[in-house]
Amino acid sequence: MNLLFLFELIGTIAFALSGAMTAINRKMDIFGVCILAMTTAIGGGVLRDIVLGVVPPTAFVNPVYALTAIGTAVILFLHATRVIIDRTRYIYDHVLLIMDSIGLGVFTVIGVQTALSVTSESNIFLTLFVGVLTGVGGGVIRDILAGRTPDILIRYVYATASLCGAIVCLMLWNVLGSEAAMSIGAVFITILRILAAKYKWDLPHADNI
Amino acid sequence: MNLLFLFELIGTIAFALSGAMTAINRKMDIFGVCILAMTTAIGGGVLRDIVLGVVPPTAFVNPVYALTAIGTAVILFLHATRVIIDRTRYIYDHVLLIMDSIGLGVFTVIGVQTALSVTSESNIFLTLFVGVLTGVGGGVIRDILAGRTPDILIRYVYATASLCGAIVCLMLWNVLGSEAAMSIGAVFITILRILAAKYKWDLPHADNI
Amino acid sequence: MNLLFLFELIGTIAFALSGAMTAINRKMDIFGVCILAMTTAIGGGVLRDIVLGVVPPTAFVNPVYALTAIGTAVILFLHATRVIIDRTRYIYDHVLLIMDSIGLGVFTVIGVQTALSVTSESNIFLTLFVGVLTGVGGGVIRDILAGRTPDILIRYVYATASLCGAIVCLMLWNVLGSEAAMSIGAVFITILRILAAKYKWDLPHADNI
Repeated sequence: MNLLFLFELIGTIAFALSGAMTAINRKMDIFGVCILAMTTAIGGGVLRDIVLGVVPPTAFVNPVYALTAIGTAVILFLHATRVIIDRTRYIYDHVLLIMDSIGLGVFTVIGVQTALSVTSESNIFLTLFVGVLTGVGGGVIRDILAGRTPDILIRYVYATASLCGAIVCLMLWNVLGSEAAMSIGAVFITILRILAAKYKWDLPHADNI
Repeated sequence: MNLLFLFELIGTIAFALSGAMTAINRKMDIFGVCILAMTTAIGGGVLRDIVLGVVPPTAFVNPVYALTAIGTAVILFLHATRVIIDRTRYIYDHVLLIMDSIGLGVFTVIGVQTALSVTSESNIFLTLFVGVLTGVGGGVIRDILAGRTPDILIRYVYATASLCGAIVCLMLWNVLGSEAAMSIGAVFITILRILAAKYKWDLPHADNI
Repeated sequence: MNLLFLFELIGTIAFALSGAMTAINRKMDIFGVCILAMTTAIGGGVLRDIVLGVVPPTAFVNPVYALTAIGTAVILFLHATRVIIDRTRYIYDHVLLIMDSIGLGVFTVIGVQTALSVTSESNIFLTLFVGVLTGVGGGVIRDILAGRTPDILIRYVYATASLCGAIVCLMLWNVLGSEAAMSIGAVFITILRILAAKYKWDLPHADNI
């Protein structure tokens, strides 16, 4: 199993958990939980493939992503009461944040990788843009479906973290090789996003309006 | 007029009515009613075509779908007061449910048919996925535009019905021929969805969270 | 600099301002303001390109649109307090309306132009449909992300103005040439939309439901 596929599985499970936890929070039934888990997990990749002209999108052709997401959601759903609820709200929110951050990191570098492999000429802007779209896409779809303001618009350093990590990944690509660049980029984004949420790093608001 | 086109017209009218009724419920003007009717009616097919790489999407090339949807919306709008309001709320909700169920059934099997005809190799997963996307897509777009939580996430047996009917349709495809398979699949979905709503069949919730 | 590119810049700046003002209204941080400005400004064009099969979309390949939108948002953000807040709410809403109307007008005729240049056969319906989609797409994405009911569904003569202007543009295309047709079409839409909002031209509602 190569690193790219491992990353895809990690990102799929992490985003599936974040989608499933959001759905459980809103008291959806098991099918709603599976649907939101799946759309969160594959949404970014589907948007990426459509934008790059890879149709049908990978997640529509290869069932492993959808099935992994649904399996993750079902397991969480069955254990939601015992595993999560016994503990405090704090832990629940923390796990959700960590899962969302891992998904953001992993999918951003997968997006960078896909953009580099699909487009013949190397367009830095396109590569970074597709990376961020892949990273944030699933979460945006999750939030729109769940009727929340997307994290990307209100959270501290959300798309910023994705963009910075995409730049790191791209800069290291030819220096350290694709696998090291992707690993470092993904870890960088995940840690940056968690630290930003933990210490409430904030960007300036136009509060006085 | 072949069966596929007849199915497309039935689905278009049914989903146009469901979109128009949703818009009228929210006191939109006649243009908003037409827009929501049209996006609901063609939304699933447009998503299907984009995912399958059929661009421009059929509904953008052939005006019959948009015009049918708009004509349906205008007729409903003009008669909304007399036909619907004189009767009870119960009947209104019932008609909306039936229209939505017919659209779900018809568009799911159209999606299965399109996936089978566009993709050369037969990928069961892709075919079912495209079928469900085509069936639920219009309703999801309608609900997002109207600011409601999409039915697919909260309604009893919504996407489940679409998926089961897509499987039935696909299993019968080579046995009974495409026309019989599509007809049985569409009726199966419509009845399953109506029964589920009527008897409030419910999937397990994680209520105790 | 040709007229088409000038139009694209005007539309990008106008829609970026409308997205940024919407975000500032909702007290988002500077990154949220930039994101909403950018998605509003490039959203319609991205939808247009995906529907026409132009992938990757122009706005993903050429950074000028995203950078213009982000630059516009940053400038507005930095001056939001002084320039806007000192004056009355009335002026703020007025500027937002004018920017949105300019974007609607300019992007509609750009959509008409792109549809005519990309599709070999001239399909009037497709051309008008793509024009309206390009014109209204950015605003719809902005409103969905910001959690508002899209203007297109509730505002007086919004998509109507776009459609009428697309028809005007297309009718004049072979008579006056593309540049004159686009200019007249864009101005027509902008004025029609502003007048409709100012004088509260309204389409009939099904109020009595």
